[in-house]
Amino acid sequence: MGTRVSAVQRWLAGILQDRIAPAAVRLELADGTSAYAGPEPASGSLVVRDTRVILGLLVNPHLYFGEAYMAGRLDVRGGLERVVEAVSRLSLLPSPIERITSPLTIANDQTRARRNVHHHYDLGNDFYQSWLDDQMVYTCAYFEHPDMSLEEAQRAKLDLVCRKLRLQPGETVVEAGCGWGALALHMARSYGVRVKAFNVSREQIAYARERAAREGLDARVEFIDDDYRNVDGEYDAFVSVGMLEHVGLKHFGSLADVLSRVLRRGRGRGLLHFIGRDIPRPLNAWVVRRIFPGAYAPTLAEVATKVLEPARMSIIDVENLRLHYARTLAHWGARFGAIHETVLARYGESFRRAWELYLAGSEAAFAVGSLQLFQVVFSPLETAPPYWARTEMYTESPAGQGRHQLPWVAATR
Amino acid sequence: MGTRVSAVQRWLAGILQDRIAPAAVRLELADGTSAYAGPEPASGSLVVRDTRVILGLLVNPHLYFGEAYMAGRLDVRGGLERVVEAVSRLSLLPSPIERITSPLTIANDQTRARRNVHHHYDLGNDFYQSWLDDQMVYTCAYFEHPDMSLEEAQRAKLDLVCRKLRLQPGETVVEAGCGWGALALHMARSYGVRVKAFNVSREQIAYARERAAREGLDARVEFIDDDYRNVDGEYDAFVSVGMLEHVGLKHFGSLADVLSRVLRRGRGRGLLHFIGRDIPRPLNAWVVRRIFPGAYAPTLAEVATKVLEPARMSIIDVENLRLHYARTLAHWGARFGAIHETVLARYGESFRRAWELYLAGSEAAFAVGSLQLFQVVFSPLETAPPYWARTEMYTESPAGQGRHQLPWVAATR
Repeated sequence: MGTRVSAVQRWLAGILQDRIAPAAVRLELADGTSAYAGPEPASGSLVVRDTRVILGLLVNPHLYFGEAYMAGRLDVRGGLERVVEAVSRLSLLPSPIERITSPLTIANDQTRARRNVHHHYDLGNDFYQSWLDDQMVYTCAYFEHPDMSLEEAQRAKLDLVCRKLRLQPGETVVEAGCGWGALALHMARSYGVRVKAFNVSREQIAYARERAAREGLDARVEFIDDDYRNVDGEYDAFVSVGMLEHVGLKHFGSLADVLSRVLRRGRGRGLLHFIGRDIPRPLNAWVVRRIFPGAYAPTLAEVATKVLEPARMSIIDVENLRLHYARTLAHWGARFGAIHETVLARYGESFRRAWELYLAGSEAAFAVGSLQLFQVVFSPLETAPPYWARTEMYTESPAGQGRHQLPWVAATR
Repeated sequence: MGTRVSAVQRWLAGILQDRIAPAAVRLELADGTSAYAGPEPASGSLVVRDTRVILGLLVNPHLYFGEAYMAGRLDVRGGLERVVEAVSRLSLLPSPIERITSPLTIANDQTRARRNVHHHYDLGNDFYQSWLDDQMVYTCAYFEHPDMSLEEAQRAKLDLVCRKLRLQPGETVVEAGCGWGALALHMARSYGVRVKAFNVSREQIAYARERAAREGLDARVEFIDDDYRNVDGEYDAFVSVGMLEHVGLKHFGSLADVLSRVLRRGRGRGLLHFIGRDIPRPLNAWVVRRIFPGAYAPTLAEVATKVLEPARMSIIDVENLRLHYARTLAHWGARFGAIHETVLARYGESFRRAWELYLAGSEAAFAVGSLQLFQVVFSPLETAPPYWARTEMYTESPAGQGRHQLPWVAATR
């Protein structure tokens, strides 16, 4: 406080304030002053300490907001998630600078893919353990009932995926990108299937293998430290939860090859669960730089034309669960906030601030609707879909039933 | 029988027999002979009477099968739907000739659109009345339980559409392409909404208006004899069941304009119910020539990129009901078969054969999976979706409840 603010800074601050005022966000300078004249009460404040921050926010807000926040040169009052949400409602269109980086230029070959995954997922299993649910599921949960706990909602999600795939005892499943193994283990444990699960995160695979052994499921679940592109064999079902975002548009053809190889015409079905968009645009530049290198959230149409059509798959069912991801992130954010001191001590302030912003910003994006969460069920062309009516996903008891006989096909004649 | 078959005809017949043998279909010539050597028992026979038919089937089967069948120069033994299904499994890829007619060349301006609709839908209300359900619903039914009657399944479909839209009493709905008015009347009667329903079929509109008056619903449902492109005003919901197939790819932008005009940012939701494809390709050439001039069945991705993205809509839910359409068509086919003599007396043999083939061929296409039936729910970008979990579509009682408050949005904070 008491700091002197130059005339240039005050002039630039006025321009920035005009841009964010419609979102009811105040811009506060180091001397405590503000030129805010937007709706009252304001939903929160951005507090900036120097001219460089203001310039950065004017020129490339998508990247610079995160950079400045992470470095502690920008602060937020009134709830980080709330302010980020308000600001993000203003900027649905990508800035010209974001446009320069075409998603098609992202090349995630196998070496790069492994490095990208390592950057995020190998931060230490105990780090994730301290704020994820008890099964370590690091993807959108399914709050079947709005008052479910995070633990219950993650179990409900695992179950939803299995029901959508209509898994039957004795079937074989391949999973691409298996995290710490929760889904693979759930499928084997509760649905009696055999699973091959692929992942390129060393730490996750080690954790998953140990868990399979501890639960006596290691004969039915094989965790494989390899890239999705190297999946081989044929299976009754293919599933991938939260991996497509890391594949990159340029490599959707490789995923199509995998699908058409492992699910052959006339049998099988698959499910893709991924963060998506309504309109094609790159992910936030700061998130790609600091949190998820190489990531891209595709539209449903991009997945349909670049993965499912070339793989000759028929779309059976699509569900958009974005509000469930907003709630999942709210849970994660609250748990992360509770271990503030531990994270600070172990990883330092800029890491802590980066993750705080990433969780709050993602929650805002799903709540506002600038990010979507799609679950897509598909089967090879001309294959009988796994159910007659989707109500079967919700009303029938899991597992244990006889193989689905598709009785209607005969009955139609 | 006893007809002489030339050596040339026998040679051409051999080539055609080789093509269709994998589908277990025999080719029988006018003298009763066949060179069939495929799987036994064969699933049925094509009976041809002259060389021209064989040539036509070799050169352009998609068009010529229908033309020859309609003219009575080709007969089928063993069940028309079964044989057409078997043959259609062989020919998933369009023939080179079909490729020449790009879907983008189909220009359905308002005059042409009216003429196309007149061709099919103005055949006489009593014609349709004699084989449709009691409410005259001429789109895919929803057999919620597999043993439902056609009447029950059509009512279940109307209800499914209303539940997916989560209609609330007092809301306003616009319907594009309303047929004989069953959905519009159902929405007003059971969900207490006010409806404007558009259609360019004179006969259908007249019928619908009379029905509304008879039921005392004419103050709440307005039937408008006009093109979908002229829809104006703002509404809580947009719905279109079975019209998109008649719009044509070239005019998807006009539909996008309508959507973005009638559903504004931040409110409302819509549903498109249409016959679609897994991979882009024109409709069967014979169906376009004889049954549905100007028609095109788009992929989900084509609808997403050419209608929903330009209209700035977010996809909330997609369901593929193709097996329900196969069963609907089986019901229609059986009812149509039962009025064989009446149709023959009134419209003549070639009309009767054309319709018999159209119904059987469509049933086969949906059963095999060369046609799909998509229901897509969407809402303007950044609008809260109409439900938290889709189970609400199936478990809650229709209508009568208070307006949906989206409680989770607050609860997430």
